Amino acid sequence: MHDPLESALFQELEALSLIDPHSHINPHSAASRDLSDLLGYHYYTELAHSAGLPKAAIEGPEITPKEKVGRLVEKLTDLDNTIQVSWLLEMCREFFGFTDDRIHSGNWERLYDDAAQKMSQPDWEQQVLTHSKLEKVFLTNDFDDPLTGFDTRVYIPCLRTDDLVFHLAKKEVRERLSRATQIEANDAASLRSAIGRLFEHFTSHGARACAISLPPSFTPVKVDVGAAAGVIKRVSAGQKLTGSEEDLLSCWIFWTLAEFCAEFKLPFDLMIGVNRRVYEAGVYQGQDLYDKRVSLIQYRALLNAFPQVTFPISVLTHMSNQELVSYAWIFPNVVTHGHWWYSNIPTYIEADTRSRLEAVPRSKQIGYYSDMYKLEFALPKFRMYRRVLARVLADDFVRRRGWSEEQALGLGKQVLRGNVESVFQM
Amino acid sequence: MHDPLESALFQELEALSLIDPHSHINPHSAASRDLSDLLGYHYYTELAHSAGLPKAAIEGPEITPKEKVGRLVEKLTDLDNTIQVSWLLEMCREFFGFTDDRIHSGNWERLYDDAAQKMSQPDWEQQVLTHSKLEKVFLTNDFDDPLTGFDTRVYIPCLRTDDLVFHLAKKEVRERLSRATQIEANDAASLRSAIGRLFEHFTSHGARACAISLPPSFTPVKVDVGAAAGVIKRVSAGQKLTGSEEDLLSCWIFWTLAEFCAEFKLPFDLMIGVNRRVYEAGVYQGQDLYDKRVSLIQYRALLNAFPQVTFPISVLTHMSNQELVSYAWIFPNVVTHGHWWYSNIPTYIEADTRSRLEAVPRSKQIGYYSDMYKLEFALPKFRMYRRVLARVLADDFVRRRGWSEEQALGLGKQVLRGNVESVFQM
Amino acid sequence: MHDPLESALFQELEALSLIDPHSHINPHSAASRDLSDLLGYHYYTELAHSAGLPKAAIEGPEITPKEKVGRLVEKLTDLDNTIQVSWLLEMCREFFGFTDDRIHSGNWERLYDDAAQKMSQPDWEQQVLTHSKLEKVFLTNDFDDPLTGFDTRVYIPCLRTDDLVFHLAKKEVRERLSRATQIEANDAASLRSAIGRLFEHFTSHGARACAISLPPSFTPVKVDVGAAAGVIKRVSAGQKLTGSEEDLLSCWIFWTLAEFCAEFKLPFDLMIGVNRRVYEAGVYQGQDLYDKRVSLIQYRALLNAFPQVTFPISVLTHMSNQELVSYAWIFPNVVTHGHWWYSNIPTYIEADTRSRLEAVPRSKQIGYYSDMYKLEFALPKFRMYRRVLARVLADDFVRRRGWSEEQALGLGKQVLRGNVESVFQM
Repeated sequence: MHDPLESALFQELEALSLIDPHSHINPHSAASRDLSDLLGYHYYTELAHSAGLPKAAIEGPEITPKEKVGRLVEKLTDLDNTIQVSWLLEMCREFFGFTDDRIHSGNWERLYDDAAQKMSQPDWEQQVLTHSKLEKVFLTNDFDDPLTGFDTRVYIPCLRTDDLVFHLAKKEVRERLSRATQIEANDAASLRSAIGRLFEHFTSHGARACAISLPPSFTPVKVDVGAAAGVIKRVSAGQKLTGSEEDLLSCWIFWTLAEFCAEFKLPFDLMIGVNRRVYEAGVYQGQDLYDKRVSLIQYRALLNAFPQVTFPISVLTHMSNQELVSYAWIFPNVVTHGHWWYSNIPTYIEADTRSRLEAVPRSKQIGYYSDMYKLEFALPKFRMYRRVLARVLADDFVRRRGWSEEQALGLGKQVLRGNVESVFQM
Repeated sequence: MHDPLESALFQELEALSLIDPHSHINPHSAASRDLSDLLGYHYYTELAHSAGLPKAAIEGPEITPKEKVGRLVEKLTDLDNTIQVSWLLEMCREFFGFTDDRIHSGNWERLYDDAAQKMSQPDWEQQVLTHSKLEKVFLTNDFDDPLTGFDTRVYIPCLRTDDLVFHLAKKEVRERLSRATQIEANDAASLRSAIGRLFEHFTSHGARACAISLPPSFTPVKVDVGAAAGVIKRVSAGQKLTGSEEDLLSCWIFWTLAEFCAEFKLPFDLMIGVNRRVYEAGVYQGQDLYDKRVSLIQYRALLNAFPQVTFPISVLTHMSNQELVSYAWIFPNVVTHGHWWYSNIPTYIEADTRSRLEAVPRSKQIGYYSDMYKLEFALPKFRMYRRVLARVLADDFVRRRGWSEEQALGLGKQVLRGNVESVFQM
Repeated sequence: MHDPLESALFQELEALSLIDPHSHINPHSAASRDLSDLLGYHYYTELAHSAGLPKAAIEGPEITPKEKVGRLVEKLTDLDNTIQVSWLLEMCREFFGFTDDRIHSGNWERLYDDAAQKMSQPDWEQQVLTHSKLEKVFLTNDFDDPLTGFDTRVYIPCLRTDDLVFHLAKKEVRERLSRATQIEANDAASLRSAIGRLFEHFTSHGARACAISLPPSFTPVKVDVGAAAGVIKRVSAGQKLTGSEEDLLSCWIFWTLAEFCAEFKLPFDLMIGVNRRVYEAGVYQGQDLYDKRVSLIQYRALLNAFPQVTFPISVLTHMSNQELVSYAWIFPNVVTHGHWWYSNIPTYIEADTRSRLEAVPRSKQIGYYSDMYKLEFALPKFRMYRRVLARVLADDFVRRRGWSEEQALGLGKQVLRGNVESVFQM
């Protein structure tokens, strides 16, 4: 970063301690145990597989963590251009004192051992949190998570509801719901009660959000309870539903979740646009893609019906970003939320950040979340975002609009940290 | 603007006097009377509402202009990042000598009074026109506007036709048409005659364009007059139409407008992509959004059927810009027209301007229009555009393609002014 | 190009000799004979027509090449902003010693004569290949091309299959197939044999790819051979097909092509998104446009069914680029392929290149192809791409990610040349 203004802004943003408003951290095993926890992240396995590494070479119970790393390292040559591999290098440099310019067959074993040694230190998790300036991290909890055995002041529970909305027809999901709530949800009223009990459980354990990921085809509408009742009875009896019955059930449960978000004053994170299992022979977590033909107009009824619920919305593609900007500009209850998955690369982060900072009220933008599975990733991911943010603040606000550096920094801090606190009422 | 080349080009573009090819100016009250006319612009009311200001705090007959301004000013803190608030500051600096870096509870009353004092000067309207280098301003006139009482050499009439195409089923609209034309439009022939009379009226008062805004779902096709006749009879008799009858009627009227545009040699401004009243609890003029899933392929039949009609086309989203570029590159009768509404922010203006200047004949691009409701907005809006245009000319044409500054400026002047004259035959 | 780093990278990329992986070169007349072969490229005729030149002024047997050039030159004033006209100037400077800054009525005749003189030299074709550093050029061959009379080590055959998939209902196409294969394809088995024979013919003449362009509505699925058989019989008997029968036939033939690509180990170039003859009154090759509402999800079944076939995919619009990036990142058999047609302008090339280099394995990206009809165009088109590539490598890799110039250049060379060799097994 050769521009002194950009560099100064970046350094100031780096000094800020963070609340990460969305991750997949397992609070019982938040940090990595060895390098396979880093290289096992789906970004690396799916990119290596895409570049020709057979799935069988990295998936299977007989493969040791070290073998897996060795096989993935061999494919890094084909991936070193990707921003994801730059995260890996940044972690290795920052956490393990790695100094080479790439990881290859000649140096990875030493790196593996260095990393294992550091990661085995009893306070490794705390070291990562401290070094990454991570104050709190939001989780993604299954609806039947007991939420015990970890510090909910650091790891903030979040009720993830994909299973309820899209998979209640599976016996296993209904059984999990029954066990978690002690309610036999065999009609509309008892299903509603069971869902309500989940909200009680989560909020009593400090949950700050309800969340769900949604396919491009989903269009939530309010369903008549009478119509829902029949379908709920059928599904409870283990009967197979038609496609339109499934849609109706999904809509009813989704709408019920929104009602409880209103009652329990929980923001409802919508992550819009993913098609699951598009590439079925893909590696673990590397099978999902999308159809860009999705519009926020599909959420028109929902956004009008729940003015009292805040919806932090993530969109999967850059092509949906302008809709997100416009809907957040008009609807008081829409908040822009991070840069999700396939859009979480600097090219799209930069374009999307520019447009949001230009047209959405500053109080309604949550700049970034890590989406990470292991704590170490917060550092390079947030740093990538902070680099882009510093550049946009320098170019668009200080240079072009004549803001002072301090004013620009204030805006940066608000989207990076302040709004997480205000939106999720921390 | 620290780049000397960019700055020099900007200064030269600033020196150009303008014809604004699309606005919502009321020619009987073109300039503002007090600050509430500026802060009452829907951009500020909708953004403030989106940031949490209740609609009731700013809408209602009992609220004085000064109270309204005071309430909006309190919300500006949440909006000061937006490009729209930068327009406000620029107007206050340019017109009222405001020198602070933001408007807040401690300085707005003085600003209010300063503004009121300036605006009360009898030649305020002329001052704004002169200071903004505005030579002529296109209007957006209801079809039944008498077009009298103002100087049509400065304020150019434009026949706006949304009501005819989409709301003829409303009794009030039919009554307005009947009063305006002295024709009882109760069958296809008389409706056609009535529409023809509107074109006579408008062109005899110097109208230079027919215009309409269109929802994403609209696909104009030629409708058989026999099929239309039945629907027109029914609607004239006050009978309720089905959805497909409404579509048929809209198509027939729209096609008839295009026929009259051909006959009267009027360009037909198409503003494509807006869904009305998506957020029904929104503030006045702050309820419309869109579905990005619209394509110019929907206009294929129209563009082929009317080679003799020029269609200046505005698209609502950046995602439609490439289609606009491609259709203007292929169809002789398609002209790119400005940067509309949700795309009227520098991020999208810049990307869209670059692509248009690279791939559309220079004679077929109208760079910008203000879309303003009050005259004072031309200055900051056109200035925003000119800043972007200067940057693109400097980077893409002078630096990368080796054009002289003079050549680049010639291109800039043509899209900013020259093409308005040639396309609208001024 | 004022940036020394960018300039240095560009010079190094310029030194690389090329294999052009997609063109429309006629190997029996690869280079131009006079300036009308350059100005007759559809980019110039369609842009000039779009800017007002009547089709009749440039199409018709009575118009001499020189007349045609003269008429097109008069329209260049309206087009000189386009990147396409910058290609023309670059060719004239590079090949004919032209030194003026534009082509106009006062200098074109001399240019015409200079060009004709150069082009009449017996080794002109070789001069162009050498000067442009073109080693090999892929063709686009009709399925019934004998593939004789040219050097298939320089001009690489490619089996183009649009006619088979979309026009087999035309008697003329069936007759061409029959003549080319000596097989009467009147049922599913014989049609399959005939197609197989085309693959034998093409691969025995050094073909390196099968290719097709596809409309936005196309969604390939595997069709039951029984269902196909009936339709094939009907079409063979010259009976008219319904729309859904046509779709079924297209799917069956397309799927059969993919099967043969697997058997013959040929990559299958998919060029996705074009609507043919949208503007029917347009000039030759200037009638096609598109509907941006297309998604790669439509190719889900295909990509899953043929893991052993490599699909170099071109998308027609910038709005499809992120899908291409994501699908190439997940599917091992998807390769990003060039910047096609309406997206082949620097604005879109730059954005698309940035995202691809950030998120697709470096081994799975083919940077550019010329798509040219005449050899002279490789130089300015590849140069345009190399300028953009140098800029992206300088900004994103050297400056922002700290790569050495050499590393960045290695990446550039791989996408520009190395991957053409590996993907097409040269």
